[in-house]
Amino acid sequence: MVRRIEHIAIAVKDVETSARLFETLLGKGCGDLETLPDERVKVAFFDLGESRIELVQGIGSDNPTSKFIERRGEGLHHICLEVEDLPETLRRLHEAGFPFIDSVPKSGSSGTRVAFLHPKGCNGVLIELVEQPSEA
Amino acid sequence: MVRRIEHIAIAVKDVETSARLFETLLGKGCGDLETLPDERVKVAFFDLGESRIELVQGIGSDNPTSKFIERRGEGLHHICLEVEDLPETLRRLHEAGFPFIDSVPKSGSSGTRVAFLHPKGCNGVLIELVEQPSEA
Repeated sequence: MVRRIEHIAIAVKDVETSARLFETLLGKGCGDLETLPDERVKVAFFDLGESRIELVQGIGSDNPTSKFIERRGEGLHHICLEVEDLPETLRRLHEAGFPFIDSVPKSGSSGTRVAFLHPKGCNGVLIELVEQPSEA
Repeated sequence: MVRRIEHIAIAVKDVETSARLFETLLGKGCGDLETLPDERVKVAFFDLGESRIELVQGIGSDNPTSKFIERRGEGLHHICLEVEDLPETLRRLHEAGFPFIDSVPKSGSSGTRVAFLHPKGCNGVLIELVEQPSEA
């Protein structure tokens, strides 16, 4: 079962400029900007209650975020939902016919496991599922 | 200051069908579907931790939701952020140069007050601000 919205991601052209804009909008600062070379993105996160807002900028033109902006402009990109048991969730959704981008979990940041569902099965919404690392 | 993500809205063509899809996806049911004649929409809400996911279908073709789908297809439509003091937030954002759709608060559901910022000032993201009714 889904527990909470872990984050909402917004695709932006320039994460530094947008981070300043969202600091004003939200009335609070974000943490340090991070560069994720493997994913070819730069990101900024704003904590917001139990969720976060992620601003994401593609590095170069040959990455999914830059291509998204080229096609649709800046804006809401995906939502990330926290689940208790990611393999079990993927098994359940596979049986229900949901199409996947990732049919098996892959490593995310901070020891998480993540998988993306294909937007064509979710009313056009790109959905990331995340399982937090166990505390044991 | 913004407290939390109150909801994320997803524009859909058929809210009954999408509600069943999201029930499977989220592993939980939604409340009763509601028709809001003034806004010419049908909506379904899923509670998710301290936030909600709203599925919204336009009634007829001459409403913003139907026009959004016609232009961009189904998908993420807007995010709603809860603020402590909506008039004060609007004053602060006006001074900072944010463009508004609603420059003064209007009545929302359940005694809330709401206002929309224009997406052109927020990296293409349509943002609704909401203030809950005071408990006094």
